[in-house]
Amino acid sequence: MKVGIVGAGRVGCSCALAMVVRGSARTIVILDRTSKRAKAVATDLRYGAPLCPKTTIVDGDFEELVDAELVMITAGINEKAGGATERDDPQGRLRLLDRNAEIYQEIVPRIVHAAPRAVILVVTDPPDPLADIARASASHDRVLSTGTFLDSLRFRVHLAAHFDIDANQVEAQVIGEHGISQVFLWSTARIAGVPVGEIVGIRGRVPHCLRRRVEADVRYANISIIEGNDASQFGIGIVAARIAEIVLRDERAVIPIGSYNDRFRVTLSLPSVVGREGVLRVFEPEMSAEEQRALELGAAKLRKSLGRR
Amino acid sequence: MKVGIVGAGRVGCSCALAMVVRGSARTIVILDRTSKRAKAVATDLRYGAPLCPKTTIVDGDFEELVDAELVMITAGINEKAGGATERDDPQGRLRLLDRNAEIYQEIVPRIVHAAPRAVILVVTDPPDPLADIARASASHDRVLSTGTFLDSLRFRVHLAAHFDIDANQVEAQVIGEHGISQVFLWSTARIAGVPVGEIVGIRGRVPHCLRRRVEADVRYANISIIEGNDASQFGIGIVAARIAEIVLRDERAVIPIGSYNDRFRVTLSLPSVVGREGVLRVFEPEMSAEEQRALELGAAKLRKSLGRR
Amino acid sequence: MKVGIVGAGRVGCSCALAMVVRGSARTIVILDRTSKRAKAVATDLRYGAPLCPKTTIVDGDFEELVDAELVMITAGINEKAGGATERDDPQGRLRLLDRNAEIYQEIVPRIVHAAPRAVILVVTDPPDPLADIARASASHDRVLSTGTFLDSLRFRVHLAAHFDIDANQVEAQVIGEHGISQVFLWSTARIAGVPVGEIVGIRGRVPHCLRRRVEADVRYANISIIEGNDASQFGIGIVAARIAEIVLRDERAVIPIGSYNDRFRVTLSLPSVVGREGVLRVFEPEMSAEEQRALELGAAKLRKSLGRR
Amino acid sequence: MKVGIVGAGRVGCSCALAMVVRGSARTIVILDRTSKRAKAVATDLRYGAPLCPKTTIVDGDFEELVDAELVMITAGINEKAGGATERDDPQGRLRLLDRNAEIYQEIVPRIVHAAPRAVILVVTDPPDPLADIARASASHDRVLSTGTFLDSLRFRVHLAAHFDIDANQVEAQVIGEHGISQVFLWSTARIAGVPVGEIVGIRGRVPHCLRRRVEADVRYANISIIEGNDASQFGIGIVAARIAEIVLRDERAVIPIGSYNDRFRVTLSLPSVVGREGVLRVFEPEMSAEEQRALELGAAKLRKSLGRR
Repeated sequence: MKVGIVGAGRVGCSCALAMVVRGSARTIVILDRTSKRAKAVATDLRYGAPLCPKTTIVDGDFEELVDAELVMITAGINEKAGGATERDDPQGRLRLLDRNAEIYQEIVPRIVHAAPRAVILVVTDPPDPLADIARASASHDRVLSTGTFLDSLRFRVHLAAHFDIDANQVEAQVIGEHGISQVFLWSTARIAGVPVGEIVGIRGRVPHCLRRRVEADVRYANISIIEGNDASQFGIGIVAARIAEIVLRDERAVIPIGSYNDRFRVTLSLPSVVGREGVLRVFEPEMSAEEQRALELGAAKLRKSLGRR
Repeated sequence: MKVGIVGAGRVGCSCALAMVVRGSARTIVILDRTSKRAKAVATDLRYGAPLCPKTTIVDGDFEELVDAELVMITAGINEKAGGATERDDPQGRLRLLDRNAEIYQEIVPRIVHAAPRAVILVVTDPPDPLADIARASASHDRVLSTGTFLDSLRFRVHLAAHFDIDANQVEAQVIGEHGISQVFLWSTARIAGVPVGEIVGIRGRVPHCLRRRVEADVRYANISIIEGNDASQFGIGIVAARIAEIVLRDERAVIPIGSYNDRFRVTLSLPSVVGREGVLRVFEPEMSAEEQRALELGAAKLRKSLGRR
Repeated sequence: MKVGIVGAGRVGCSCALAMVVRGSARTIVILDRTSKRAKAVATDLRYGAPLCPKTTIVDGDFEELVDAELVMITAGINEKAGGATERDDPQGRLRLLDRNAEIYQEIVPRIVHAAPRAVILVVTDPPDPLADIARASASHDRVLSTGTFLDSLRFRVHLAAHFDIDANQVEAQVIGEHGISQVFLWSTARIAGVPVGEIVGIRGRVPHCLRRRVEADVRYANISIIEGNDASQFGIGIVAARIAEIVLRDERAVIPIGSYNDRFRVTLSLPSVVGREGVLRVFEPEMSAEEQRALELGAAKLRKSLGRR
Repeated sequence: MKVGIVGAGRVGCSCALAMVVRGSARTIVILDRTSKRAKAVATDLRYGAPLCPKTTIVDGDFEELVDAELVMITAGINEKAGGATERDDPQGRLRLLDRNAEIYQEIVPRIVHAAPRAVILVVTDPPDPLADIARASASHDRVLSTGTFLDSLRFRVHLAAHFDIDANQVEAQVIGEHGISQVFLWSTARIAGVPVGEIVGIRGRVPHCLRRRVEADVRYANISIIEGNDASQFGIGIVAARIAEIVLRDERAVIPIGSYNDRFRVTLSLPSVVGREGVLRVFEPEMSAEEQRALELGAAKLRKSLGRR
């Protein structure tokens, strides 16, 4: 019941706060390049902990990760600090990958050395190629990318808003890359069990204008988060805490999450059974021919981003 | 089941995240001087919400606060932004009060206009005089200061660390001002029901060196939070979420919290019964003569900080 | 945040215990024909309550229901006490309805008199016709039957067991009557988003043998519960607590639940949006022609059971 | 994260339901002399489980207990079934001990054989001597009695009712035997940190009439539970679930609970630190001379009840 968080920036802090409040772990270890920062975060959290399920919060160095069952990595520079968002500069995101890849190559082996059986959860952007780099840098199999879990929630939230219904009642998934090549699975999106295409479409097909509108909402919302509050941090914090619970409790829940895929020869997200050992099984969801193609393209793009290195 | 948060800075964000994860409220309204910021925070939280108890998260203007049962104010400048901590500059904190008082005089009447029956919870530093200013600025009775709830947790956490025990088993309170005149109630601090003085003291008295050490730990930890992570935010976020639950669920729980005190003619913290209407009853805890005196002095200091205005 | 439970037998007790532990309500009122029994249950629960979210537990008479937002009725005789299960004696269940209808005609007007705005949740068997009787006996619109919510969970649990996966990842619904005419929606049952027919079927159709097996599992399990422990009580207790939360928090969640249906002129279960006012909207799920027909037949059977009276 | 429950009667069922709803364990194993009964209870719980934190519920034989971290024993006959309450017949309770001791001598070795490292929690009445018998019958050290945890809650609930305050704000403990020799620690009972004697007493002493009244309330309430609903089951169910969490999460919380005490040479309850290994440390609370004496007498009575065997 021990989770490590490497990187105590805004995302790492949200992950930690969400985990303390939910009681996701028995022990949380917080690491940061700046040890003063890790200490500050751990201390601050410790004062709220008596109002939450019993959790011990520790700051320290890599050796504190011993026996951790999960280590989430939030370290690295983010889109804003990286100088450019993908929207402004298609090269910006690759530069982000280069910089963060270096950081990963340094820290992942130290994590695996301290906690050889831990599942590693890559939260830093871009998580999919960084997961591949993490795997390679320490010959470690149990590597997950937060992938499109958050994107799927965004898809559901905006679909729910469109139909003025509760997001929990929308079944809808985003798969592929956590990035602009991601695939919205419109063909199987359902509201209260009824296909979206049945509700608004002609012959069961979702109209183009609805698709464009909802996908734009998702994209625009994300930009407005970054512009208004520097970084997307709270949604991902809750997502990471939930993943931690699924792993620690060995829930074997099915969620869209990134793991290395033999068929696509790269890490990308598909609905997967997750438990104590990481991803136990990957499903290929129903897809239209168009969605299939988009997934292949996304995979190719991800392979290329790695190959370039 | 509606709570407003006025001020979407770091503290406001922690309050909001803790409340969403705990499911403290059915609806959370986020306001900020910069509406783009409020919108960013609300949007980001909304994506994690489907993994938490059902909560609607809204950003907007003061009129969105209609029917709120609690409005917490986290707006204002903080110690660091205020240019100086009390440690460096005894005048620094008063300047903080002046600046934040102006902000409060502007926003509190607007809150009370929108939500005349809401309990107002002052989180901004210094919360005790600001609570008095809030009361005066809108002739509103239901005003709380987060006061020494967090300080009491800190006291318990450091006492627990000293005795290597769980903080939930330490009963210990800090009362008076949320600030350097605060009073640690050593005379009634207990570990698992046993007075601290019985455990380590001579004739039941807690040794001076233990007192100095634990009080210094509390103080030093706070400084290290501010230096390492800019602002104390996670502990107070959890505390504010817990207070929101006590008010919304009308729990009538007893917690150390600040409210206007007729006897001391100022807002300060004493153990109080809190429910839907705010503070329902205030207790005077057992105190040694020395603690009594310290409380009087703290109250005088608080009155003076207000009088000066 | 007040819920009443009328009937403190085994089912009522499970509902109450589940609600106290979950903190589903702020106040729970327990009524029973035998006031000694209601008092015993309330007292016993009160001792565990300090370990749970703050809940006040009261026993008393109908006037205690004033301001209740939800009243669940678990009063009445059950299948076992009723002398015969449907399996043994097709008339047995109708006798059950006659006996419980009398009880409902006596208590529902008293509930509605005390709490005219409350949603009434019928838990007693058979819940669908009893909901119709409840509506008629007090001209009260806000009447729900627990309906096939529990049956849907059973369907999911046994499908999950069959495929060795987590029940939360199975989407599958039972609709129509909470009774032997209920309709298992095989045509839209999905495992991790993949239709069951795609996984095991030929041309997308679920094989007959699988259907028979799972439906028999559901049925056999229920018989073994009644034979081994007198009454099905724990599953329904958790279901009722969950429904209470959905109503009290005005969640607007979509669940399979029974309400009066204008088209079918009887109370039966379909996926429905539930909130503070009861059922807000009813969906007609995708159905195969065969499922459509079975639903019509079930509705006819339910109408007949009422008409006979 | 595995807990076994041996005995699926009313108390065992309440423990199980409370644990499923709270998510106290990852796996719950239910055993009963009548395997049909264990199966019925497990099946029924399984249907509600998808609405709760992920829990696997299993029924089976002793070998299913392998790797359990805690096994609670609720098997045995109860006061009512035992033919007489202590009130009616001072010998009745001893007969209860004889009968249940036999059952324990049979099952405890089988539990310890299957799960040699498990903490055993004795819930069956009378739990203190049965804990001693459990220890002896399998040379097993990690044996707890639920002891006076529930009695302490009852004390707090009735004190709180008397002062019209929330039970969570009352600090008050019952120690010694879970039975009529139990000791109410009036001398240290506090309301919101203020000694009860300070509130209502003369020179800090609690008046005799208040003591008599509250102690009678506790006793009378218990009798009315047994008379109205056959057995005290819900309070103890929640208590047992809470103890399970403390053990499984290695919380090291301090609670009044029974364990073998070297000084008293018998199992009785004192405030104790509880964690993964069972009781880690026992505190002797402050006691008046009278309370000391009562504790000694209770211990002597417990020793005698064992010696007689």
